[in-house]
Amino acid sequence: MYLTQSIKRNAQLYPNKFSTLCGVRRRTWVELTERVAKVAGALQELGVKSGDRVAILALNSDRYYEAYFAVPWAGGVLVPLNIRWSVNENVYSLEDSGCTLLIVDETFKETAREILEKTDCIQTIIYVGDGETPEGMLNYEVILEAAEPAEDAMRGYADLAGIFYTGGTTGFPKGVMLSHQNLWASSISIMAGLNLQAPDSIYLHAAPMFHLADAAISIANTIAGSTHAFIPAFEVSRAVEAIAEYGVTDVLLVPTMISMMLASPALAEADLSSLRKVFYGASPMPEGTLRQVMEKLPGVAFYQAYGQTELAPLATILGPECHVLEGPNAGRLRSAGRAGYCVELNIVDAEGKNLAPGEIGEVAVRGPNTMLGYWNNPEQTKAALIDGWVMTGDAGYLDEDGFLFLVDRVKDMIVSGGENVFSAEVESAISRHPAVHEVVVIGIPSERWGEAVHAIVRLKAGGEATEQVLIDHCRHHIAGYKCPRSVEFREEPFPMSGAGKLRKVDLRKPYWEGKGRAIN
Amino acid sequence: MYLTQSIKRNAQLYPNKFSTLCGVRRRTWVELTERVAKVAGALQELGVKSGDRVAILALNSDRYYEAYFAVPWAGGVLVPLNIRWSVNENVYSLEDSGCTLLIVDETFKETAREILEKTDCIQTIIYVGDGETPEGMLNYEVILEAAEPAEDAMRGYADLAGIFYTGGTTGFPKGVMLSHQNLWASSISIMAGLNLQAPDSIYLHAAPMFHLADAAISIANTIAGSTHAFIPAFEVSRAVEAIAEYGVTDVLLVPTMISMMLASPALAEADLSSLRKVFYGASPMPEGTLRQVMEKLPGVAFYQAYGQTELAPLATILGPECHVLEGPNAGRLRSAGRAGYCVELNIVDAEGKNLAPGEIGEVAVRGPNTMLGYWNNPEQTKAALIDGWVMTGDAGYLDEDGFLFLVDRVKDMIVSGGENVFSAEVESAISRHPAVHEVVVIGIPSERWGEAVHAIVRLKAGGEATEQVLIDHCRHHIAGYKCPRSVEFREEPFPMSGAGKLRKVDLRKPYWEGKGRAIN
Repeated sequence: MYLTQSIKRNAQLYPNKFSTLCGVRRRTWVELTERVAKVAGALQELGVKSGDRVAILALNSDRYYEAYFAVPWAGGVLVPLNIRWSVNENVYSLEDSGCTLLIVDETFKETAREILEKTDCIQTIIYVGDGETPEGMLNYEVILEAAEPAEDAMRGYADLAGIFYTGGTTGFPKGVMLSHQNLWASSISIMAGLNLQAPDSIYLHAAPMFHLADAAISIANTIAGSTHAFIPAFEVSRAVEAIAEYGVTDVLLVPTMISMMLASPALAEADLSSLRKVFYGASPMPEGTLRQVMEKLPGVAFYQAYGQTELAPLATILGPECHVLEGPNAGRLRSAGRAGYCVELNIVDAEGKNLAPGEIGEVAVRGPNTMLGYWNNPEQTKAALIDGWVMTGDAGYLDEDGFLFLVDRVKDMIVSGGENVFSAEVESAISRHPAVHEVVVIGIPSERWGEAVHAIVRLKAGGEATEQVLIDHCRHHIAGYKCPRSVEFREEPFPMSGAGKLRKVDLRKPYWEGKGRAIN
Repeated sequence: MYLTQSIKRNAQLYPNKFSTLCGVRRRTWVELTERVAKVAGALQELGVKSGDRVAILALNSDRYYEAYFAVPWAGGVLVPLNIRWSVNENVYSLEDSGCTLLIVDETFKETAREILEKTDCIQTIIYVGDGETPEGMLNYEVILEAAEPAEDAMRGYADLAGIFYTGGTTGFPKGVMLSHQNLWASSISIMAGLNLQAPDSIYLHAAPMFHLADAAISIANTIAGSTHAFIPAFEVSRAVEAIAEYGVTDVLLVPTMISMMLASPALAEADLSSLRKVFYGASPMPEGTLRQVMEKLPGVAFYQAYGQTELAPLATILGPECHVLEGPNAGRLRSAGRAGYCVELNIVDAEGKNLAPGEIGEVAVRGPNTMLGYWNNPEQTKAALIDGWVMTGDAGYLDEDGFLFLVDRVKDMIVSGGENVFSAEVESAISRHPAVHEVVVIGIPSERWGEAVHAIVRLKAGGEATEQVLIDHCRHHIAGYKCPRSVEFREEPFPMSGAGKLRKVDLRKPYWEGKGRAIN
């Protein structure tokens, strides 16, 4: 149960098969494993010792893939930085995790300089770009060439493998500590759940490699012996070109990427005949999108995966048999799927008691994939990990066959007059009104109801609606107790986090200040 | 990474699907999980505490299957006893492992009495048979019915799951300690390696359930959500009846069982149309047998697995693509396959140095499946587990694509004049002589060669051959240095262990006594 095992196995079973396809660079499993041993040697020569954290800030490439194995081979812990974050957030992550070594590519060489200006924790920067090596940085290929191959440090099992920073919606990011066991158990369960055991597969890294969604499917494909192809970042034209050029069979996309592909003229001329599987996560597939993409890609099997970083990241998988618009499984398209092979999943009430099928509560997950905890943060670890269960913060229910249906974030749930109201359901109802551009629903204090349902609405340019009109509109769509008691109109945009997530906490704040309820 | 997780997951995903089919008893996953919780409650009421060992001596049944989960659910450690061993060997295992509770069935109720006469370690006997409950024993269904369901003790990860006694060929059995992690990592790798992810599969327990070959494929099928069917023990007529009756899709057989089936008149009338996969282990499939069985079962996929108890038990798997008589993979039928998903496998010389493809050495395996060690036996643990590697005692080589070819047991290898001679190869050559009934080849002391190749031959009734005739015969088949220097004829049978294995050590003994070489 150590990440380096799978690349050594692949070098033995598929010595001359390609491990990585990246632009003009194509390398076999034997070459990859030899390079990983040499990069590990270079890292050790630069002072990386057992348990030391090594950060990487880069777009997708074969060298990023090598880092996932070279860092543990050297005995280190990988810290993949979020390419969408501000310099401040990444400086926080670097200082919090105590990194002294940073790997950057061409795209982030300037960011690296900004980081150096703001913190002095970084001693060494390794440049994995193909341009001229920036002053003060070490060139990856040069140090690799010069290095003696290291012996595998045999980091594994409960040893820390990586720190994955997440959150950022509320306050500073939290460093999710994942062990080799966490990543391996999750990834082999993903491999089996997505039926990846076909060593002629070619997996395209189109989603960002710092994110655990790509990382886990990448490790799953490594266990399976698949070839890895890379594009620096998702763009429709680059993705469809890469699929045709490399003969890509498997790809991970989020539903918006699929929508972008469907909307693009590039799709009409593209040769996607090699595609066999599309994995997606983060959100369910809208039915309209599914209908379209199934027409465009009739031979492709779709798999949805749901999880979170704290679960390395597997919770559930929805297979192709449920990506259908007719038959007994049709309604399951709105489901997030069923527990992965290594996963124990329950729906629990506020006291942690298991709920029956159909009852809504918080999704709790336990298994070998549940994180070690948050780095340097025992308090938040204690709140998130209860008796080995990760409390996901997602509200949902199970049907009689174990299919999970998500309804809301737990913290966005409103308890009004003893009834649970899911803000997502109310938002969906209000947004159907033609005058409404955007809406957020929150709970606000109420003497009578405990919490009252409150809607904050931005109207379309020229759109007209009053509080009463919107409340009446809701009565046609949802039960009375779910309808807003009050509606507020605003013109300015809703507050968003750096990661592009809505900050409901900021909207609730003015109502709850001094009222003693935790609002985030 | 705990064995109980998979049955809880199956109860959630497949609540009304059958978990077990055993004679007239058919139980769903929900029923099974409820029964397991109650058996665990009964075991706790009988005093089973965390880490306590619970032994079972029984033929195959649904209740044996329940024990594999109820014992860890109660917090205990399962000790499956070898149904082929003598009372003395099992008494040794019970005392060595410190069991106080023994589960027996109808077949072994008398053996249980004999055990009680020879040891006073056993305090409680649970009877899982369907006859009248023997005096002094507790009836399984009665105590189950009366018990409160226990909370899952959540034994898992590096916790001891079972002690599996093995060896017996030389001296007393050794208790192989396997953790939950060992069994889970091996089993999910087996599940993926055998492509078991089809919850409509029905697996027949035809091989004995005390043996880790069945146990691991059983756990793999449990992770996969397959239904389990049982016959008490292998008999051709019972096996083919069960396949037809239950609609069995998957079965584990050893090559001799397959030969027995092919030779049986029962096969002609049998309906085996439900069979999709046959797994076999212990020895490669003879080409003649394969040719016959492929004709009889044209739609069936064959998988060979090689391993040993110390590896929980996975080392390698040979897939159906190599069970062919023509094409590029034809020669691979003689191979034991390639490293399983969780396995790191090397061929090493006497100093532990890795050997190149084609070079013969000892098979060494490392991974999450390698045992914790031998129970109560740190010395033998130290000899068998070197830096996490299990030294298998098997000699073999890898081809360029990582296929393992086994040639001999390391201890049966003869080093003669600096050359390695594999007794199995010489035995194979001599056995082709028409007068030879059985042959064993060993190394005996030689001043000139260090060791000299020596054959001990039993001739067929009426068969005639001299020492020189057999040596000359060998020269036609193998290189000169491999031919025996001396041949000895004997009439009495070769010495066998209780487990039916040849005891070469007894044959070497008279030659080596006082010569200072370790002979076992």
